[in-house]
Amino acid sequence: MEGGLKPMDAEQLRENAHKMVDFIADYYKNIESFPVLSQVQPGYLHKLLPGSAPNQPESLQDVLDDVQTKILPGVTHWQSPDYFAYFSSNSSVAGFLGEMLSAGINMVGFSWITSPAATELEMIVLDWLAKLLKLPDDFLSTGQGGGVIQGTASEAALVVLLAARDKVLRTVGKDAIGKLVAYASDQTHSSLQKACQIGGIHPENCRLLKTDKSTEYALSPESLSAAISHDIAVGLIPFFLCGTVGTTSSTAVDPLPALGQITKSNEMWFHVDAAYAGSACICPEYRHYIDGIEEADSFNMNAHKWFLTNFDCSALWVKDRNALIQSLSTNPEFLRNKASEANLVVDYKDWQIPLGRRFRSLKLWMVLRLYGLENLQSYIRNHIALAKHFEELISQDPRFQVVAPRKFSLVCFCLLPPHDKEDCANILNADLLDAVNSTGKLFISHTKCLVLSGKYTLRFAVGAPLTEERHVNEALKVLQDKATSLLQTL
Amino acid sequence: MEGGLKPMDAEQLRENAHKMVDFIADYYKNIESFPVLSQVQPGYLHKLLPGSAPNQPESLQDVLDDVQTKILPGVTHWQSPDYFAYFSSNSSVAGFLGEMLSAGINMVGFSWITSPAATELEMIVLDWLAKLLKLPDDFLSTGQGGGVIQGTASEAALVVLLAARDKVLRTVGKDAIGKLVAYASDQTHSSLQKACQIGGIHPENCRLLKTDKSTEYALSPESLSAAISHDIAVGLIPFFLCGTVGTTSSTAVDPLPALGQITKSNEMWFHVDAAYAGSACICPEYRHYIDGIEEADSFNMNAHKWFLTNFDCSALWVKDRNALIQSLSTNPEFLRNKASEANLVVDYKDWQIPLGRRFRSLKLWMVLRLYGLENLQSYIRNHIALAKHFEELISQDPRFQVVAPRKFSLVCFCLLPPHDKEDCANILNADLLDAVNSTGKLFISHTKCLVLSGKYTLRFAVGAPLTEERHVNEALKVLQDKATSLLQTL
Repeated sequence: MEGGLKPMDAEQLRENAHKMVDFIADYYKNIESFPVLSQVQPGYLHKLLPGSAPNQPESLQDVLDDVQTKILPGVTHWQSPDYFAYFSSNSSVAGFLGEMLSAGINMVGFSWITSPAATELEMIVLDWLAKLLKLPDDFLSTGQGGGVIQGTASEAALVVLLAARDKVLRTVGKDAIGKLVAYASDQTHSSLQKACQIGGIHPENCRLLKTDKSTEYALSPESLSAAISHDIAVGLIPFFLCGTVGTTSSTAVDPLPALGQITKSNEMWFHVDAAYAGSACICPEYRHYIDGIEEADSFNMNAHKWFLTNFDCSALWVKDRNALIQSLSTNPEFLRNKASEANLVVDYKDWQIPLGRRFRSLKLWMVLRLYGLENLQSYIRNHIALAKHFEELISQDPRFQVVAPRKFSLVCFCLLPPHDKEDCANILNADLLDAVNSTGKLFISHTKCLVLSGKYTLRFAVGAPLTEERHVNEALKVLQDKATSLLQTL
Repeated sequence: MEGGLKPMDAEQLRENAHKMVDFIADYYKNIESFPVLSQVQPGYLHKLLPGSAPNQPESLQDVLDDVQTKILPGVTHWQSPDYFAYFSSNSSVAGFLGEMLSAGINMVGFSWITSPAATELEMIVLDWLAKLLKLPDDFLSTGQGGGVIQGTASEAALVVLLAARDKVLRTVGKDAIGKLVAYASDQTHSSLQKACQIGGIHPENCRLLKTDKSTEYALSPESLSAAISHDIAVGLIPFFLCGTVGTTSSTAVDPLPALGQITKSNEMWFHVDAAYAGSACICPEYRHYIDGIEEADSFNMNAHKWFLTNFDCSALWVKDRNALIQSLSTNPEFLRNKASEANLVVDYKDWQIPLGRRFRSLKLWMVLRLYGLENLQSYIRNHIALAKHFEELISQDPRFQVVAPRKFSLVCFCLLPPHDKEDCANILNADLLDAVNSTGKLFISHTKCLVLSGKYTLRFAVGAPLTEERHVNEALKVLQDKATSLLQTL
């Protein structure tokens, strides 16, 4: 960097960061000119960069030139308006500014004392968000519960699984770990299985109960009850249920009230994963999807998915924060301090896997303040309207079929094979996925969940911050054109 | 935000982000005017902010005013030149720019295909850093090993502990989890105990072996061998050793070559935690501290501590990446893609706890390029010279005693009580800590590790990016003045 090593010189920061702002603003100005899904081949970058770090400093301009010519071609543009894959991971001006400010302060907020504002703002902002979602008061920081920002829904699922595990092991003895059983539907996110692997729950004791079209791929309370009864009968110990509101494959919604009754009577921990769909519940007309949340022990939604808050920001609320702390606290001497010892404060290090943590509440606070509830509701409604628009258009093309009910901003559909070639349905749709994604004009993804009849299913998920109706229309056109070409080759 | 909801409008981003740059640059310009350790009381922020999120948008200026008047007073300023607590967590212009760019792109790089550049740059940059540290080739991505950026050293320790756990359980059967034993010195970071808790290793099977002054608080190979033999004799299964290069309390260095021989002959996983001191090993004169690293299975250093890379950026290298992947992979249909199925690429989701991940390699790449190796070496050497300077000055004051050998940039010391009041040594030093930290003029921390003779010991850790000799001199003066006052009251 020009002018020798002044690693945090205010004026050097000012000058260079202004350049970076323009670079990033220009990126957004031109974002539609990039292929959405990167078209590079494995190993491409190795050929473009030197084999070792430089001895002498290089200029920011050289680095930015490399970003433009070597890095951006290898980026899949999640913020592109033509991004319809997986679920979105929204950025926004407010989210970006919050991330900048957090990086500017660069504190490590493991304990209250290492930056009281970081802990306290997180408690306040998660209370704000809990109120927007109309969560029961038990989840607020004013009682025995509270919210915490995790990196991802995977970490949220892991920490509550550990809390639940240790709670039951304190009663039945730690050698009984091999008897613990966790439950979820076969539509639940893979992070639950991973959490079980990590926490030492036997893989065969992670029950992913079969769902089907009769419940619109939601977990059936009857099948949960039956599984629990069977497990108890053979001496196993049911301890954890993960219900999902808005599954990854098809946004199915598990019936929380009935599931909550079952976990209550079996003294199990009930976690609700609304990583994607939770955001929609700030709109009164979608709030009913989390009716029954009062029976849950923990609730998770990803503000970094569909709430304009830069990745990562996964909001987790628990009713009993002590259960988390009993599993995750360590209290070495070098971190002791008066405020913590006097039990006056929250030390979020004991609510999460890592010790250190960033000032992530800043970005969520800025999103809430710079946009306000009404704008955020409009934003969600607009995406759902765009998905509905896509669903209507593709339903009008008889070559396509919508294969699962649309509840939020995801449409699951497939291209139908000709009647005499029904056995090539899966290949046809896999080929269509490849064909459209290879154009670089849009990016969609797929699922092949057993429950969606084992069909290779295409997923069109609206959620990028710049998506407008014209992008949806254009995406449909590419899909239709590629379908025409593929059907002709059959 | 002015002008309605255009959540990622390029010109709105440009205008507002320029304002944020100036806000952050001004913060650094004035950083010495803040109390280093925040002086607020628990619950202070609750009184200053409203009880719920606004319905209507507010202006950026309003938010920045609140940051200035309500948030910054609650921040402990880790980047202040007067910050000497814990270990530092460096920011820098380059690290900040990298974080900005990562937030600007805001992609979620769980699999190669979700942004090939993110995975490939991470592999390349960690190979670069491995070469600067002269790690054995086994740790490079070109063989069976490779590097990965974890959030924190805690996560690094956890993932390798899980890999080691599952490797041995595949041989002895998963019901033997209660027999597994992990080892480390009583100086090891609390993250090891936490990793054991999470992974279901029985707390009483996490052996923290006693160290003392005779080994300068390093783990003694003899005591390790004895513990292992005893455990084997009673039917337990030693599986994991964490050696530390630069312990938290006193920067002790465990004897890697001898420890490596022991783990090898007992077929245990050998993890080396050099979270803090690893950075110094880019200087030839400090590289010998990791001699013996060729016997380790994994090695960790935090680029976010002392390597000018914004938090979080913890670099972990393993020799056998498949051991990690076998523990941590899940492969749901919705994430399947040709590149991954063909085994052509690395999918970092299978090397870590979370699924999603940020583009953290950008900031490390920018630090390496914008500063270059020689500047980074000078930076490390300067901090060590400043610590040596402090050590010399405080040694000249007979009221103080340096209580552990200084190896890097940490000085451990205490204020000696008068001869007739030796029993108040701990209270005296605790009072001194409070007295200096309450001035807001500097921030230091303490330790009371049993091994440092149980003494309440003060820690003076040089490492903030703006620290110069004058800050060290001024800190010493405050310490001496407060010592004078305290001794007068005895």
